Amino acid sequence: MSKLSGFPEWLPDQRMIELRVLDRLRTTFELYGFAPLETRAVEPLDQLLRKGETSKEVYLLRRLQAEADSEDDALGLHFDLTVPFARYVLEHAGKLQFPFRRYQIQKVWRGERPQEGRYREFLQADIDVVDRDTLAGHYEAEIPLVIGDALKGLPLPPVRILVNNRKLAEGFYRGIGLTETDEALRAIDKLDKIGPDKVAELLVATAGATEAQAKACLALAEISADDDSFVSLVRALQVDHPLLDEGLAELAAVVETAREHAPGLVGASLKIARGLDYYTGTVYETELAGYEKFGSICSGGRYDNLASSGNNRFPGVGISIGVSRMLGLLFGAEALRISRPVPTAVLVALPHEEDRAAGNRIAAALRARGVPTEVAPSAAKFGKQIRFAERRGIPYVWFPGEPDEVKDIRSGVQVPADAATWSPPDEDLRPAVTMDETAR
Amino acid sequence: MSKLSGFPEWLPDQRMIELRVLDRLRTTFELYGFAPLETRAVEPLDQLLRKGETSKEVYLLRRLQAEADSEDDALGLHFDLTVPFARYVLEHAGKLQFPFRRYQIQKVWRGERPQEGRYREFLQADIDVVDRDTLAGHYEAEIPLVIGDALKGLPLPPVRILVNNRKLAEGFYRGIGLTETDEALRAIDKLDKIGPDKVAELLVATAGATEAQAKACLALAEISADDDSFVSLVRALQVDHPLLDEGLAELAAVVETAREHAPGLVGASLKIARGLDYYTGTVYETELAGYEKFGSICSGGRYDNLASSGNNRFPGVGISIGVSRMLGLLFGAEALRISRPVPTAVLVALPHEEDRAAGNRIAAALRARGVPTEVAPSAAKFGKQIRFAERRGIPYVWFPGEPDEVKDIRSGVQVPADAATWSPPDEDLRPAVTMDETAR
Repeated sequence: MSKLSGFPEWLPDQRMIELRVLDRLRTTFELYGFAPLETRAVEPLDQLLRKGETSKEVYLLRRLQAEADSEDDALGLHFDLTVPFARYVLEHAGKLQFPFRRYQIQKVWRGERPQEGRYREFLQADIDVVDRDTLAGHYEAEIPLVIGDALKGLPLPPVRILVNNRKLAEGFYRGIGLTETDEALRAIDKLDKIGPDKVAELLVATAGATEAQAKACLALAEISADDDSFVSLVRALQVDHPLLDEGLAELAAVVETAREHAPGLVGASLKIARGLDYYTGTVYETELAGYEKFGSICSGGRYDNLASSGNNRFPGVGISIGVSRMLGLLFGAEALRISRPVPTAVLVALPHEEDRAAGNRIAAALRARGVPTEVAPSAAKFGKQIRFAERRGIPYVWFPGEPDEVKDIRSGVQVPADAATWSPPDEDLRPAVTMDETAR
Repeated sequence: MSKLSGFPEWLPDQRMIELRVLDRLRTTFELYGFAPLETRAVEPLDQLLRKGETSKEVYLLRRLQAEADSEDDALGLHFDLTVPFARYVLEHAGKLQFPFRRYQIQKVWRGERPQEGRYREFLQADIDVVDRDTLAGHYEAEIPLVIGDALKGLPLPPVRILVNNRKLAEGFYRGIGLTETDEALRAIDKLDKIGPDKVAELLVATAGATEAQAKACLALAEISADDDSFVSLVRALQVDHPLLDEGLAELAAVVETAREHAPGLVGASLKIARGLDYYTGTVYETELAGYEKFGSICSGGRYDNLASSGNNRFPGVGISIGVSRMLGLLFGAEALRISRPVPTAVLVALPHEEDRAAGNRIAAALRARGVPTEVAPSAAKFGKQIRFAERRGIPYVWFPGEPDEVKDIRSGVQVPADAATWSPPDEDLRPAVTMDETAR
């Protein structure tokens, strides 16, 4: 009966806020032409582990009554939506049109040790664009614009999307003579957690860097800018490599496109590493204003080799909003409110239990015009029926009679009304979600 | 890479149809005042098995890197949404207002052997009303009305909700002197599958019935009616038991209420047993016209003892639409179509790649007024860009110019247009879902 650590469950008012967020995400994704998709929750274990992702702590499945040699034993719950999507694209490539734009909003599971804002079961909202053989660079610029558009329509703190490019980092590391570029990236990824001195030690210890090379890596990681001025800052470090040039051009295009269409949303930040995931170009992380210390709430990047088998290659770019993570932080800070924990706008009161059929007809008339309506649970005294509405924040109580009357129980104003024509004001029709700007 | 048997995955057009169905369900549920809820996908194993439900074939979870004594070993994936909901109500009773109305739309998992229309992972859409201590009978009449309202707004075959009452059946069996009422019910539950002769044999063999008693059970099961006339048909069998009286009155109320508010939707069918689930009163099953042989697509009932611990008791009534099951049947028959497999209504064509920023601004203006818009993937020849739209069923292509023009590529009609004011006709804004009435 006790709560399971790492498996969050919202109360109805919180779930209503979450649905409002999901509705906005979905509407925006569809406005940009992303088609919806869901994949099964399970993948064959070899699929889940093929990038060596044991760090994601996969949950394995076993049937209670499984035979010993059952194939089920090799199934696990997906830990993200990108790996299943890549598998889906390869499996259904013949039935999809490329470039293929899809969004996917689903639960994922990771058996990690639970801690604040980290869950074992959580909801992600992903968008990706994949193409056959080659993927145009402009999609890397579009992805953050979609996210900025979606989130700005919600009562949430502002976000800032920080962008880097794997080619830029790798080209730079190679340009200064490092060969253990993965190890270098892994060290830089720890910058915010352990600070520059420790990262320098790591670079020396694990990436085979000299102190000068470590210093250069840190100098690169310190660079950030809201426009393409980061290019000259990198050039000033006097490192040359063709991969570096490619990365600089790609990152500049992403930042400048965003600056034109959504000023202030995107910044280049050359310390962004995104762990050791499957990314090969642009990478994204997202800060929620006031909650920066909890890390990124929306991350992703370009991947060229995730969906490929034999001669078929489907490079892609995508991003994933950590919906549970973001809302968990905001709920924890009591930053979000909803005006009532039920959809109901009107409660039809009942003078007598025999009036229930008439009450149902009134409710049906209101619902037919989109007004969420409940009929009172019992023909108790009117005071008790009004308290039923009050406790739930239902704003209106309807009294059948000659004529019917409807009461705004907040103001006490009661007026004659016809169920065939009356509607509440727009702002009362749906519960309102608001943000407490002072909450942290 | 191969498909996993029992784990269905829809193509994007099918997922769009599914979402249209879910939107209608959710909107209707909210119009009736049901609040949304999600529970975690996992439950402690003892919770899942406490009704002896090993027949549901629970999937157990194990972390890949679990320590031997890990608590995770006792977790399983939920096999329905009622058991988790009952647990949630007990856990959060102090924070909920009763009677509590909630809807819950989530995946569930059962490790059963896959067969047509039976999945190992599937989507259910549930509504339930629970109250503290006692639950008014009128909720048993309301539940089928909500389902009828929700489904009639969709391009689906008509449904018929068949209703029975556990008290009626149990009272009748006791009235004729049977004591193994569970076994009798279990036998009657097989009526459609094995026929009356085999059921009679079963009643004798497992429920301790005489041939006369078996005949009486079958006579009861044969009764059905669209109004309360079934009461006199049962009375004509001359069986007396207080529980039978209770069940008859409850079932009559459900059928008569439905007859008043939604004629033709609900019928009493005294053979409905609903397996050996936790139901204690009204039970529901639902036939989809033309797909009756595949069994119920929406089932439920009243349960008095599912959510109780010590002195706290929360009787409830609910119903569950098997969304994957229903859509799987309809998709299999190719009965449902959508006019395009993408949300996009307009493709902005690009004369040159340098026009992409201008194309993005046009798209932004259209999206700001709710028109789903994509910008062409590349500034290919216009013929190729138009074919891009054609292949996806995107109805309009926008040509930037002086002035801009928009072309309906189905009719070939091209007219001047301003992105700040032009909208497609309403019927083109969202893809249309239609049913092929001849498909089976």
